Amino acid sequence: MTVTIKLGQLAEFLGATLSGDPDKAITGLATLQEAGPTQLSFLANPQYRKYLAGSQAAALLLKAADAEGFAGDALVVPDPYAAYARISHLFDPKPKAAAGVHPTAVIAPDAVVDPAASIGAFAVIESGAHIGAGVTVGAHCFIGARSVIGEGGWLAPRVTLYHDVRVGKRVVIQSGAVLGGEGFGFANQKGIWQKIAQIGGVLVGDDVEIGVNTAIDRGALADTVIGNGVKLDNQIQIAHNVQIGDHTAMAACVGISGSTKIGKHCMLAGGVGLVGHIDICDNVFITGMTMVTHSITEPGSYSSGTAMQPAAEWRKSAARIRQLDDIARRLRQLEKQVGEVTPDGNASSDG
Amino acid sequence: MTVTIKLGQLAEFLGATLSGDPDKAITGLATLQEAGPTQLSFLANPQYRKYLAGSQAAALLLKAADAEGFAGDALVVPDPYAAYARISHLFDPKPKAAAGVHPTAVIAPDAVVDPAASIGAFAVIESGAHIGAGVTVGAHCFIGARSVIGEGGWLAPRVTLYHDVRVGKRVVIQSGAVLGGEGFGFANQKGIWQKIAQIGGVLVGDDVEIGVNTAIDRGALADTVIGNGVKLDNQIQIAHNVQIGDHTAMAACVGISGSTKIGKHCMLAGGVGLVGHIDICDNVFITGMTMVTHSITEPGSYSSGTAMQPAAEWRKSAARIRQLDDIARRLRQLEKQVGEVTPDGNASSDG
Amino acid sequence: MTVTIKLGQLAEFLGATLSGDPDKAITGLATLQEAGPTQLSFLANPQYRKYLAGSQAAALLLKAADAEGFAGDALVVPDPYAAYARISHLFDPKPKAAAGVHPTAVIAPDAVVDPAASIGAFAVIESGAHIGAGVTVGAHCFIGARSVIGEGGWLAPRVTLYHDVRVGKRVVIQSGAVLGGEGFGFANQKGIWQKIAQIGGVLVGDDVEIGVNTAIDRGALADTVIGNGVKLDNQIQIAHNVQIGDHTAMAACVGISGSTKIGKHCMLAGGVGLVGHIDICDNVFITGMTMVTHSITEPGSYSSGTAMQPAAEWRKSAARIRQLDDIARRLRQLEKQVGEVTPDGNASSDG
Repeated sequence: MTVTIKLGQLAEFLGATLSGDPDKAITGLATLQEAGPTQLSFLANPQYRKYLAGSQAAALLLKAADAEGFAGDALVVPDPYAAYARISHLFDPKPKAAAGVHPTAVIAPDAVVDPAASIGAFAVIESGAHIGAGVTVGAHCFIGARSVIGEGGWLAPRVTLYHDVRVGKRVVIQSGAVLGGEGFGFANQKGIWQKIAQIGGVLVGDDVEIGVNTAIDRGALADTVIGNGVKLDNQIQIAHNVQIGDHTAMAACVGISGSTKIGKHCMLAGGVGLVGHIDICDNVFITGMTMVTHSITEPGSYSSGTAMQPAAEWRKSAARIRQLDDIARRLRQLEKQVGEVTPDGNASSDG
Repeated sequence: MTVTIKLGQLAEFLGATLSGDPDKAITGLATLQEAGPTQLSFLANPQYRKYLAGSQAAALLLKAADAEGFAGDALVVPDPYAAYARISHLFDPKPKAAAGVHPTAVIAPDAVVDPAASIGAFAVIESGAHIGAGVTVGAHCFIGARSVIGEGGWLAPRVTLYHDVRVGKRVVIQSGAVLGGEGFGFANQKGIWQKIAQIGGVLVGDDVEIGVNTAIDRGALADTVIGNGVKLDNQIQIAHNVQIGDHTAMAACVGISGSTKIGKHCMLAGGVGLVGHIDICDNVFITGMTMVTHSITEPGSYSSGTAMQPAAEWRKSAARIRQLDDIARRLRQLEKQVGEVTPDGNASSDG
Repeated sequence: MTVTIKLGQLAEFLGATLSGDPDKAITGLATLQEAGPTQLSFLANPQYRKYLAGSQAAALLLKAADAEGFAGDALVVPDPYAAYARISHLFDPKPKAAAGVHPTAVIAPDAVVDPAASIGAFAVIESGAHIGAGVTVGAHCFIGARSVIGEGGWLAPRVTLYHDVRVGKRVVIQSGAVLGGEGFGFANQKGIWQKIAQIGGVLVGDDVEIGVNTAIDRGALADTVIGNGVKLDNQIQIAHNVQIGDHTAMAACVGISGSTKIGKHCMLAGGVGLVGHIDICDNVFITGMTMVTHSITEPGSYSSGTAMQPAAEWRKSAARIRQLDDIARRLRQLEKQVGEVTPDGNASSDG
């Protein structure tokens, strides 16, 4: 699939200053190193400035400072990465679904599907559901009873929404994601687990993105809540009653236990795990694979885990960690002894 | 969706002592803080006793001791949390599927579907499969050849059972779960991986719950076995030949490697990982994100990992961990030296 | 389902030396301990030699050395495990799909489906897709626009390929896997995440296996690339622009962040996580749940994390780790002090 757009049109679209031939045809986007003579590229990370001179790209998105010494064609913009983000959609080969309902879809008589929505093959839309204008529901999607998808949403093939899941506007949900599954609620009676019905729903704000095979459980009593602008990567687990603040982003494989609240503008790197019933304040960054076992009340970066080592050295470190309490006690003991023989010894003065 | 049940009816259902108006209408359940004047709530965790006085709830599930000083309506029961678990199902808005086969379902001529089972849209049921009485098979489910679902089971939309997966009675399987996938079996020949056919099946006991997007692989030769009453949360990975004892529960994102056996009444918190070919005895609790690298023969709690720190401090700790073997050796050396100059020095007496 | 093959036929198939009755009927495979009198077993791991004498198996796959003292029937081969791998497929009860298109499948007019391919119920194949000879596309699969599946591929039920995903020959993809999802690409503008279209595709080599619910995202600009012979277990996350070298294997729950490159013949154990934009050289082995935060340039084994302890002891170790920087400084201080009082003291001589 090829799209062709003239450089002058791209300048106009971006409000960029064009330095070069407005009639040059652009057929795609690529990195500085890989771009061919009809592709546009960009310089966002100063680290890649070294590739500027050798780039074969038809033209580049550049900051004014970088454009000064550059001989080739350029679109000068204040933020090349943001400009690339905007332009990328013009070259996206993702098929656009036509409005209308595929003849194989099964739609409950009392479900409401906007005429400007697109419903794919074998989709199932249950009683009382509401699909807004401009929404794409991919093939094999299941939209449960009374669930709502706000206007402009895009659901990849094979997305499942259980009943009573309300999704805001312009929400993107990737394949395999499941919203509204029954959370892990059981009461233990003499060793036997008794199921607790999960009677809450899920509430998803506007402009949210939900990744491949990500699971967001319904609330036990009230709703599980995902704020506006939240971005969830693939394979994430959001347990019942979790609340996530606006514009928080999580990389893949994050797991959040029940009833935990996360603030706004947080970033959780891949594989982070949070225990249940804790609060994370706004503007917290948690590095990859960190285990979060208590609330965080101060913005900032947090980590756990150990650094990778060659396995032979790691085995020694791991064995020593198990001796750490002993090591610390012996050190304290030594400090006492040494303090006795060295008159000015204040062994822990800098500790 | 609203259900209305009178307080007196709830008392009768639970065998509770009613203190208050038996004709009061209850329309739902909520927490102490969120319950409105037609909702029932409960006090299970003593920590929340402070919310008792201010609760707007129509009535509360209370222990006798808590009910004594309480002015509002109450259902007095021995275990309020267990009572809430039982009552929750009365207010569950989950749609109940009617018995019968959806006209779009594709069912092999020699599959057996009980007339009191419900088969959803676009379900596929293969040759020799058997669906018991009262079973719900959701839309888009796939039930492979010769697989069996015992009576009273509930499969959410989009559950996949490969061939030869035998599931007991009253088993709940959430959306996206896959039972019977081909385990990771390969023989390495000079660097090339040769696939080993996975000819075993999966055997699931009664009263099991399997979460969203959880995977249970089929056995390599014999069956992978999940005991009675086992509860598996979302995004769990159970490799081939694993055996899980009765009434064991696992939180989300747990991963269990091949041929590992887990005892009865164990609890694995979120993100725990177990290597293959080990045995975990009964009544073991493993805390979140622990890496289990060897068998456990004593009941009790087990952990690994490091505690979260601000990232700047964590970087120091992580660097020091890599020096730990050196630190321990230097400490030993110091103890020797100090022992020489302090006559009564027994540096490691308390270690 | 029962297959019966004579021992002599198996010997011929394997090119094995038969010691025993060529007409003995073999109906299946089992372990040494579990095999019954019509089942074949094998001895690969010397640890299990103790079960040789007591085995009820009809016959065994044995090395010449082990066959010498063995009284029962045996197929003598150089590598019993490899022989078992080859034979396992003869006894695989997995249903074989007949060639042809199920009447319920929805196939775009301009998609190409080889007459020797099998397309399951409710499969959707989009415009310009190409399905090769001998390919099985399971029920509920979705093959996006212009995607390609090379000859001999096997897709379990419910596999999703987005558009522009090119898969090589003889590739096996398990249920729930998603290839070509839109990677986690966002540009942050004043705290708001702006989506970047993911215009690359996915390129998968020959003889690859992809596990249950594994996700492989499409590239942001160029393709995400999976080499020949790569084996990916369940629940793995491969982010956009990742490149994986030939014959590398990953166990379940591995997560690989964007733009990371992994060499050939690597092995990643379960739960390993890699940050983005790093390079792992060929022949690297990473132990379970390791956090890989930088490139690896030397072949070998690598690890991170701490060893499991009883929770009470672990709490002490975890507390001490947070004091490690202090402990190391105090040790250094002590060494200085002791060096002053012990004339020959070179405290860090062995560190």
